[in-house]
Amino acid sequence: MATRRPVKIGIAGLGRLGKQHATNLAYRVPGAVLAAACSPVDEELDWARETLPDPRIHSDYEALLADRELDALWLVTPSSLHADQIIAALRAGKHVFCEKPLSLDVAECERVLSVAREYPHLEATIGFMRRFDRSYRDAYEKARAGTIGRPFMVRSQTTDQNDPDGFFVRFAPTSGGIFLDCTVHDIDIARWFFNGARATRAFATGTIALHEGLRECGDVDNGVGVVEFEGGRLAVFYASRTMAHGCDTHSEVIGTGGALAIGHNPRLNRVEIYDAGGVRSESTPTFFARFEDAFLNEAHAFVQAVAARMAGMPPVAAGGATLADALEATRIGRALREACSTGLPVDLPA
Amino acid sequence: MATRRPVKIGIAGLGRLGKQHATNLAYRVPGAVLAAACSPVDEELDWARETLPDPRIHSDYEALLADRELDALWLVTPSSLHADQIIAALRAGKHVFCEKPLSLDVAECERVLSVAREYPHLEATIGFMRRFDRSYRDAYEKARAGTIGRPFMVRSQTTDQNDPDGFFVRFAPTSGGIFLDCTVHDIDIARWFFNGARATRAFATGTIALHEGLRECGDVDNGVGVVEFEGGRLAVFYASRTMAHGCDTHSEVIGTGGALAIGHNPRLNRVEIYDAGGVRSESTPTFFARFEDAFLNEAHAFVQAVAARMAGMPPVAAGGATLADALEATRIGRALREACSTGLPVDLPA
Amino acid sequence: MATRRPVKIGIAGLGRLGKQHATNLAYRVPGAVLAAACSPVDEELDWARETLPDPRIHSDYEALLADRELDALWLVTPSSLHADQIIAALRAGKHVFCEKPLSLDVAECERVLSVAREYPHLEATIGFMRRFDRSYRDAYEKARAGTIGRPFMVRSQTTDQNDPDGFFVRFAPTSGGIFLDCTVHDIDIARWFFNGARATRAFATGTIALHEGLRECGDVDNGVGVVEFEGGRLAVFYASRTMAHGCDTHSEVIGTGGALAIGHNPRLNRVEIYDAGGVRSESTPTFFARFEDAFLNEAHAFVQAVAARMAGMPPVAAGGATLADALEATRIGRALREACSTGLPVDLPA
Amino acid sequence: MATRRPVKIGIAGLGRLGKQHATNLAYRVPGAVLAAACSPVDEELDWARETLPDPRIHSDYEALLADRELDALWLVTPSSLHADQIIAALRAGKHVFCEKPLSLDVAECERVLSVAREYPHLEATIGFMRRFDRSYRDAYEKARAGTIGRPFMVRSQTTDQNDPDGFFVRFAPTSGGIFLDCTVHDIDIARWFFNGARATRAFATGTIALHEGLRECGDVDNGVGVVEFEGGRLAVFYASRTMAHGCDTHSEVIGTGGALAIGHNPRLNRVEIYDAGGVRSESTPTFFARFEDAFLNEAHAFVQAVAARMAGMPPVAAGGATLADALEATRIGRALREACSTGLPVDLPA
Repeated sequence: MATRRPVKIGIAGLGRLGKQHATNLAYRVPGAVLAAACSPVDEELDWARETLPDPRIHSDYEALLADRELDALWLVTPSSLHADQIIAALRAGKHVFCEKPLSLDVAECERVLSVAREYPHLEATIGFMRRFDRSYRDAYEKARAGTIGRPFMVRSQTTDQNDPDGFFVRFAPTSGGIFLDCTVHDIDIARWFFNGARATRAFATGTIALHEGLRECGDVDNGVGVVEFEGGRLAVFYASRTMAHGCDTHSEVIGTGGALAIGHNPRLNRVEIYDAGGVRSESTPTFFARFEDAFLNEAHAFVQAVAARMAGMPPVAAGGATLADALEATRIGRALREACSTGLPVDLPA
Repeated sequence: MATRRPVKIGIAGLGRLGKQHATNLAYRVPGAVLAAACSPVDEELDWARETLPDPRIHSDYEALLADRELDALWLVTPSSLHADQIIAALRAGKHVFCEKPLSLDVAECERVLSVAREYPHLEATIGFMRRFDRSYRDAYEKARAGTIGRPFMVRSQTTDQNDPDGFFVRFAPTSGGIFLDCTVHDIDIARWFFNGARATRAFATGTIALHEGLRECGDVDNGVGVVEFEGGRLAVFYASRTMAHGCDTHSEVIGTGGALAIGHNPRLNRVEIYDAGGVRSESTPTFFARFEDAFLNEAHAFVQAVAARMAGMPPVAAGGATLADALEATRIGRALREACSTGLPVDLPA
Repeated sequence: MATRRPVKIGIAGLGRLGKQHATNLAYRVPGAVLAAACSPVDEELDWARETLPDPRIHSDYEALLADRELDALWLVTPSSLHADQIIAALRAGKHVFCEKPLSLDVAECERVLSVAREYPHLEATIGFMRRFDRSYRDAYEKARAGTIGRPFMVRSQTTDQNDPDGFFVRFAPTSGGIFLDCTVHDIDIARWFFNGARATRAFATGTIALHEGLRECGDVDNGVGVVEFEGGRLAVFYASRTMAHGCDTHSEVIGTGGALAIGHNPRLNRVEIYDAGGVRSESTPTFFARFEDAFLNEAHAFVQAVAARMAGMPPVAAGGATLADALEATRIGRALREACSTGLPVDLPA
Repeated sequence: MATRRPVKIGIAGLGRLGKQHATNLAYRVPGAVLAAACSPVDEELDWARETLPDPRIHSDYEALLADRELDALWLVTPSSLHADQIIAALRAGKHVFCEKPLSLDVAECERVLSVAREYPHLEATIGFMRRFDRSYRDAYEKARAGTIGRPFMVRSQTTDQNDPDGFFVRFAPTSGGIFLDCTVHDIDIARWFFNGARATRAFATGTIALHEGLRECGDVDNGVGVVEFEGGRLAVFYASRTMAHGCDTHSEVIGTGGALAIGHNPRLNRVEIYDAGGVRSESTPTFFARFEDAFLNEAHAFVQAVAARMAGMPPVAAGGATLADALEATRIGRALREACSTGLPVDLPA
């Protein structure tokens, strides 16, 4: 570690999640140097100047691409920009990490994969961070080791604490809807535990429990989906924007010889409170709180993979979601959205 | 209690579950006298003579019906007999408790309801025992009291410990399939928490994880179902015959202001074991173990309701599932079975 | 069961706990007949007339003793009467079950044992009901089976929900203090898991957290005790009158190969509530709620043991605490009280 | 953060725990530079050269003291060296962080405090890392905020997974025994929650469950202690070397209005395993695994406190244990050891 050249990274996008990534890359990832930061927002650049260890500041993405010293770009930008920005990064010779989703559009996803095939020496990872959460990772390794026999069912949910202000309603028109915004994480988890098995059919439905404002853009605040995969595997998904108790992301993997649950009680920490209401634990309020370590771990893994490539070593599996994984997540997410809208199952052609 | 005349009950069917009901009625329900027992099986009648407090013994149901001293009949007979036996009991002037299901056939269910309308003074209850489990009851009362706002989603499962011998496979042809055999309980729970709301549409799918023998009768050993109810309510069901850890029946009710989970960890009791594998609790092995108290409580409730009627008091709600509830459970269960078979959602007409 | 003569029981004492025992014996214990009830309190006798199935009513204990039809007496009377009443029962030829404690006085306990030796054909059991709780029983059997190696430490607590009215303070002068009133249960559990090993030394201390009224009778509302047993075994006890969350009775047994915890979370039932405070379960409010089944199970066991003796069969172990167990519990409880009062360890001579 | 001069730190001691501290300081603490490493062990220095970002390497402590560029020293050396090394560090003008214990000898502790009073501008912290664990910190803040009324009892334990090789037995002669080696952490937690209240009396006992080799140096492998504090506060401690399931460090704080438990189930992560044994979670195997974050957080806090002093700002509370806290932990730990040895309570004079 001490002997390799550090990986020089430029980050684009310094919103709430971007700030967390930037701080991780700047201070918590051995072998990484956060050398540049890019945002069109003045407040975000001010934050970068004050908080980060002296990065070069760029106000547009073109300048970041042109920054010759950078080995890799880290994208925490709006979803609609991801595809074009990844392509531009690859063409500029940069390794690239991009927050999910790759794109809400299947054709755009395929276009990125097509370009990426021209740059096999460049790392390109999509940030499905759950794969780097210690508990998900532990369960994955147990499943791989055969602890539960053959996994044939995944149940997984992404449910956020209700925001009484319905802030997210304003973003509904561009979020792609609850299945593409939230359930993609669960889809990725199911595919991961199913060893990349192909999804064949999707059904979904949903309801608006609280946020009537979603109705006009065809979205729901609570959705359920069922996906069939080849080999008789099944996945059941639940997504919600209206939980009272917190951000409750959990998953189960059921096999022929046992089952694994990850995060069944979304406990904030190891504290239990005994009072007149009984015995309780507080819940993780947000996915930031829940996946803080996962965001850091994925940065470690990406930097190690890039460093290995830069050292001329054969590519190592970074462990994250590939572009192909991200394409599948979008394909399945769109099928769920269509099923929810039409009320009919949607076939997923091979 | 001491002043009322006891309710004299005759039980029909003394298989495993019948024996448990008989013992409850004989020894654990104040106000009840188990006055007669009926079975075509000699071994079962021998058991009754040895174990029960001197009941009259009948080897056929006609003789039980003709037993003038009996106020009520308690049916733990094969499902295919339920409808006719209930009708006969009502026509003989007996109150009747019958194990679920009412019938696997919707028209038969309707026929029973039609006859029962002629006997409004007779109690007729179908044994969906979960309504009498203390935890389900507590959650129900909390939901009724508004603890979780408006309940809009139920997730509920009935999953049995795997029987490596696949004993149940032999009964698959007459069980009605996993949705009518297992999921009916979850359907009843959903309808209960939804205050009897009407189901409008059902979708289901399933897989065979272990028991290939089910294939020839079109059944599965793991099934999932989604049911839409009026008012934007949703239910998601899971049934399995292949759990490694035990009988894991649990339910969640999600509302606009909170959620309730019933039985999330199917712990056998209050013991935790600390050893090299970590910290564990054993799981309830069977629904007998899980619902032992519920079977007793439903007997208490039925006897109290009958005693009240016998005392000339106005009918009290026994708290159990009515014939109409049982009809709906069958209707929805059949829709799930059809959806699983055709791969298409099934509309449930009003 | 059906062929044996029922055991005819007379109960003395119909306070809150007495009523529960009476109802169990009257309606929930096959093989038992509650044939008589005795109390000096008119309200209690009225309750017996209304609720129980026609028992003979006695207003003084002498009359109960003289009731020729009774096979056994069941004592739920004030602690100060236990010793004399047990002796009188034995001398009247009755089997006897008595609520704990045997006596707060060691010499009195020994006097009862001495008399009992004259009546070896009579069953005499003291009601340490925890031995009949399913979870404690399961843990006990696991420990016996060697699951945790050699048990060498017990940690056990009896902690009641705070009564803001401090009702119990009025009874402090006669309760014997927190160690003799509460900790005796934990002492009995430790001795049970230690297979009757002899205690050799006791230390204790305590504090008054809320109820200053206890000070004048030398009692505390929170006490801790440490007891050394032969063979290097240790027990640590905690008793409290001031819990906010409920009645939290739990125990741990630690062995050389593992450990068992019984009741770590005093959950009321299987319901979990998800709300803005996180995820919680309500707690058992009282020992009645916690040990409802244990009170019933100990009645079953006593009646079976008496029935076996009445049938001329060799005495079977009822599984409950013997008079000798109760004597030891008092000896150790007194040593803890003395240690708490003097601040010095107290030796327990062989 | 970006504008301040970094704190340059030299570490002494690169055993297992030293390596973890070194890696934290080198790569995970913004504002810190690990500029030097010191060890008399060649293997450890080799590790430092390979793993750390180019620190100056010293093979003896004198050279580290003489390293002019260092602002602070971080001591992970044998306990017997702590006192002298802290004094030398202060006299060399360095801020100092030292792993617990300050010293096993009360007089030595007092000598360090006396010297430290001459250097009030230098930070001196003893590494009781539990104060920096997120869950302990959360509970502490809740207690401070009055969530549980007045805290009057702490129960706390430090129990390690059994090492069948009994490796630690060899270190027993210099460890100070179980109370000074393990229970000091619990003592510090009790004092922390009791707001520094003075301990007045201690009692302890113990047993050897497995490791007979401890007998010759007067140590035990399982010990319990009770400590009285002023104001009627009580603490009960348990330490063990023989747990089967893992490193199970947990604590409870009981107040007049509620209670807090920290770490009741020592779950390794958020995974639950469902198999024939029931439902289980694996346990944290070691205190490294349990307190990994706490070790990092204490480094953050120390560096921030030193940076503030270096920037001429008034001293901020680093939140860690002061030398005075460490002296008290040793005083109480020694009293427990003496009590365990003599069998008598030990008074702790004011």
